[in-house]
Amino acid sequence: MRVLLTNDDGIHAPGLMALYEELNGDFELDIVAPESEMSAVGHAITLSSPLRVQTVNKNGTFFGYGVTGTPVDCVKIAVQELLKKAPDIIISGINLGANVGVNVLYSGTVSAATEGAFWGIKSAAISLNTRTNPDFRFPARFSREIIRFITEEGLQGGTALNVNIPALPADKITGVSITRQGVGRFDERYERRIDPRGKIYYWLSGETPFEEEIHDADSKALNENRISITPISYDLTCLEEKERLQSCAPPKHRHL
Amino acid sequence: MRVLLTNDDGIHAPGLMALYEELNGDFELDIVAPESEMSAVGHAITLSSPLRVQTVNKNGTFFGYGVTGTPVDCVKIAVQELLKKAPDIIISGINLGANVGVNVLYSGTVSAATEGAFWGIKSAAISLNTRTNPDFRFPARFSREIIRFITEEGLQGGTALNVNIPALPADKITGVSITRQGVGRFDERYERRIDPRGKIYYWLSGETPFEEEIHDADSKALNENRISITPISYDLTCLEEKERLQSCAPPKHRHL
Repeated sequence: MRVLLTNDDGIHAPGLMALYEELNGDFELDIVAPESEMSAVGHAITLSSPLRVQTVNKNGTFFGYGVTGTPVDCVKIAVQELLKKAPDIIISGINLGANVGVNVLYSGTVSAATEGAFWGIKSAAISLNTRTNPDFRFPARFSREIIRFITEEGLQGGTALNVNIPALPADKITGVSITRQGVGRFDERYERRIDPRGKIYYWLSGETPFEEEIHDADSKALNENRISITPISYDLTCLEEKERLQSCAPPKHRHL
Repeated sequence: MRVLLTNDDGIHAPGLMALYEELNGDFELDIVAPESEMSAVGHAITLSSPLRVQTVNKNGTFFGYGVTGTPVDCVKIAVQELLKKAPDIIISGINLGANVGVNVLYSGTVSAATEGAFWGIKSAAISLNTRTNPDFRFPARFSREIIRFITEEGLQGGTALNVNIPALPADKITGVSITRQGVGRFDERYERRIDPRGKIYYWLSGETPFEEEIHDADSKALNENRISITPISYDLTCLEEKERLQSCAPPKHRHL
């Protein structure tokens, strides 16, 4: 089975290396990842400039391709140009930090999995809920379980899995839940600062998540020491609101 | 009523100016838009570098704020830092080129509207289905209809409107349809080229959309000379797949 590994923390990130070390030997691995960190780029793609691709070696042997683009660029160019055989599965991660709630939309890691779903490839994003002192060993082992799960159970066309793992030893993790994307978001603000030349700049800060109210939300599972698995779709249509708006008088277009 | 205008083509784009000229006087307008073109950046935000904000004048008077970031950055910093009063409505556009099918996820214009929905602000993205010789006058007039529509009918929490307008004279437009996001995508490929120094680079190309099969899809409406209005949500959860996966044996986490 061919597995494509990518991420948004870059090809040299320890979370990607942990996946490689766990899965290498049992799967035919391809690695195509951003040359440098590409966090919070969402579903961005590179149109106005070209992409460069470099081969990256580790311990003297070929490891993968580093791309001067976003995680979505990496999936696209892997599938369309770089790989001789299409992957059966895409695993994106292991991300340093959770991707839950509305922040999922900002995540390059998750967007790489969504892009995989576009291409009809079974895909999962895997994130670890810490930004400090990460231990990627359990999440890497769990990624093998995710591969088994989506191979055995399949994934509905157009969906990918967004997996978030508590930063705890395996025996402290209390379960695995199929969840939904929560509505929690970070309590963000801009810090207004003055640079050494006296000019104003702004920097986004603040990371305390709001309380999550949805009982089966991704972040609620994490807070209760459970692994969360959310099936996500690239179809953004809100069918409920579509139905409601269809019963309204439509906007006028004549005589404008 | 306060209306925030933004886009992904940049603060100097004609599509934004057309909105300004149409709406100025009847609404209290704020303009916060990227300093330069930011197409295809999706829901990207700027975390690893600071944002700069410049005031932009047109015809000798204050026009708006140019931000060294993405459309989503613009909405965030407008709401949190730059504007004294929160907008009642956000209009993002008028985009040069349609935003339909799965390509909606790549669109900075649409993501700005989604970000507005995060903040509980009624938001719409407006795109014109051409990349050459755009005439923004009808789309600008129609944006006024969209403002009336979402003011009168409201918008369900967490949803925004993705509006696409055929590039036709008003009397050639055959209707207005509430649609869903299609599954059509561009027929993309990478062109492999050699730079003047003999090195390889890749550039994404190809723009012919696939045939759309969904009868109430956005691109189908456009192809039939109708305006499409798709309510989109930032909740990516596929509830149908969630239910199915909940009936499966979950991935194991013990003894890993």
